[in-house]
Amino acid sequence: MTIQDILIRAKAASRESATLTTQLKNTALNNMAAALEENADEILQANATDLANAKGVLPDVMLDRLRLDEKRIRAMAQGIRDVVALPDPVGTVLESNRLPNGLTVQKTRVPLGVIGIIYESRPNVTSDAAALCFKSGNACVLRGGKDAYFSSAAIVKALRAALKKTGVNEDFVNLPQDTSRESATAMMTAVGYIDALIPRGGAGLIRSCVENAKVPCIQTGTGICHIFVDETADVEKALTIVHNAKTSRPSVCNAAEVCLVHEKIAAAFLPKLKAKLSDPAVELRCDEKAYEIIGGVQAGENDFDTEFLDYIMAVKVVKDVDEAIAHIAAHSTGHSESILTENETNADKFTRAVDSAAVYVNASTRFTDGGEFGKGCEIGISTQKLHARGPMGLEELTSYKYIVRGNGQIR
Amino acid sequence: MTIQDILIRAKAASRESATLTTQLKNTALNNMAAALEENADEILQANATDLANAKGVLPDVMLDRLRLDEKRIRAMAQGIRDVVALPDPVGTVLESNRLPNGLTVQKTRVPLGVIGIIYESRPNVTSDAAALCFKSGNACVLRGGKDAYFSSAAIVKALRAALKKTGVNEDFVNLPQDTSRESATAMMTAVGYIDALIPRGGAGLIRSCVENAKVPCIQTGTGICHIFVDETADVEKALTIVHNAKTSRPSVCNAAEVCLVHEKIAAAFLPKLKAKLSDPAVELRCDEKAYEIIGGVQAGENDFDTEFLDYIMAVKVVKDVDEAIAHIAAHSTGHSESILTENETNADKFTRAVDSAAVYVNASTRFTDGGEFGKGCEIGISTQKLHARGPMGLEELTSYKYIVRGNGQIR
Repeated sequence: MTIQDILIRAKAASRESATLTTQLKNTALNNMAAALEENADEILQANATDLANAKGVLPDVMLDRLRLDEKRIRAMAQGIRDVVALPDPVGTVLESNRLPNGLTVQKTRVPLGVIGIIYESRPNVTSDAAALCFKSGNACVLRGGKDAYFSSAAIVKALRAALKKTGVNEDFVNLPQDTSRESATAMMTAVGYIDALIPRGGAGLIRSCVENAKVPCIQTGTGICHIFVDETADVEKALTIVHNAKTSRPSVCNAAEVCLVHEKIAAAFLPKLKAKLSDPAVELRCDEKAYEIIGGVQAGENDFDTEFLDYIMAVKVVKDVDEAIAHIAAHSTGHSESILTENETNADKFTRAVDSAAVYVNASTRFTDGGEFGKGCEIGISTQKLHARGPMGLEELTSYKYIVRGNGQIR
Repeated sequence: MTIQDILIRAKAASRESATLTTQLKNTALNNMAAALEENADEILQANATDLANAKGVLPDVMLDRLRLDEKRIRAMAQGIRDVVALPDPVGTVLESNRLPNGLTVQKTRVPLGVIGIIYESRPNVTSDAAALCFKSGNACVLRGGKDAYFSSAAIVKALRAALKKTGVNEDFVNLPQDTSRESATAMMTAVGYIDALIPRGGAGLIRSCVENAKVPCIQTGTGICHIFVDETADVEKALTIVHNAKTSRPSVCNAAEVCLVHEKIAAAFLPKLKAKLSDPAVELRCDEKAYEIIGGVQAGENDFDTEFLDYIMAVKVVKDVDEAIAHIAAHSTGHSESILTENETNADKFTRAVDSAAVYVNASTRFTDGGEFGKGCEIGISTQKLHARGPMGLEELTSYKYIVRGNGQIR
């Protein structure tokens, strides 16, 4: 089936969303979870094919992301069951007004329609995204990477069989066979078929979507996150927070990449930071002033504009909170930034002026996450300002419409 | 100044929005309104230049849109004063949570940043858009059409002087001198500078933005609006509503373009509709079955996919509410549709299944409007589902951020 055929079928399925009750969606999701477990052998066999094809082609870290086992399949099934427990966002009346002319206007939450996801080689994204899109009443087109194709196809086969068994149109969940660059372009330009495109992956994929998408697209994920250690920071807390934000999981988008330090605390703080970030060892790339204090590696031109996703941190000494805010304005990707300070005025200034999805006072940037923010799930973290910002859960996968009831009103 | 210079200045101004209190914004807006009135002579002189240039080039209806007089300038000033009275959306805490680890998470409404508006030859859009963007804390870049350039430039000169007088950065309101096609393209591709692009104008402009924009863009305006007259419709109400929706202002996007009629009521209803739509005279373009009943003009291939914006209406006989819903799904632009029925089951089915910004029961489509919906204003009507749908007021010109306060939390 061509990707155009799939888009047509997905759009047609999305038209049936009005018939999906919460109970029916939850029954389907439970069946989807069970289907993954029941078809574990087939999924693992498909995964073995992907792994065999990828061996010697992909780096080890990517092979690990690609690999499935019984435990990971159980985790995927559990992920779907967790979505069952989340409240259904569809149908909520967001505002209700009775106008002077007697019309009642109800702003009502509805699904977006068809959601396109373009992602790379993690098979678990396939089941996660399918479950979140379905619970929010959307059809989805999951255009995964070539490397995980057989795994994703086996997963989607099981999920579609579960939908069919529940009596739901299986075209709510779709996986194009075509994993070429052209199929990604076809998704990006599917005006009238895709209501929202969400790229999940590296900076190159995101950039390609922003550059080429003609359908509404949500920019996600890239995080050059900053921590500013103000003059009045509590040093022990600051050391713990920077250590956590940098080293607890350096490969994720909410990990800190840049530490800005107030010049009045730099001489006291930086040597301690260097010691703290020796286990695990973090390479500190220092601007001139920081280098004078702790030596090490001098920052190059691009080090303050790089998402390292590694045990590397750029360090810069700034004059005050205003210079910190200005540096962040010039270099941040708008994901998450934190100020460590005991000065309430500076904390307020920072939270008001910094234009990022999440702005922290005295906490690690690592909390920017749908689960941590109480959404129970996450399909991505938006770094744009239109539609949704920060962690996107079920509500962020919906739109609304105005339902207006009258008895003959004219204007 | 090049458009790139303007974008840089607008972005810099938008960074100062955190310093704008509601009171300061309202003072500035009152000064902006007064400045329009005080500079009426200069604005009218500029308008005379535009009119002289456009004479013989633009059709009369466009010349009328372009023409300003004392009364229209007073109306523009009053439009700005009306915005003063609207509540300030910025700073509202949309959700507030205290997490088990002690973090407080406040989802707080913030401006979008820089809003780009690409529009055609109505000078009043210049002051309307500037006021709405400013009240919601945004900087704006108003790229108007060549035909209205001198008028818009005189208006923006007055508005910027008023900002300066109030002590606010005048770069909150910007009008590029360059009105070439290239300047529109520069706006569409200003990634990192424009946070939301709103085209206001004809279908060609909207399509060009959807095709070419690399910045987040909101599709607005085009309305192929349908009215479905169900078997059980109250005939007198139906005649009044269709007449109002078609003829009260045919040139606007919420005017009805298509009338679908249930086959069981068609023979009784259509002759009455034909009579009702004779004053003012509406050309009815009929599908085969409607033509058999009332004759007249046979509908051509494109008549069910055309926004006439004129005294023309396409008419089709359908089997039932399901066929009406299917026809709308295939031909609507997602703006406004109405069902006229006394059957509650069909009304519910229609409102659930029809995927448009506003779905009416027994009322005219003409109510889809920011003022009518109680928003007090409108910068456009979104026909897409991402970010905003239907009439966009001040709240729809905002985003949000998460402000998270802790005392040393790590993950």
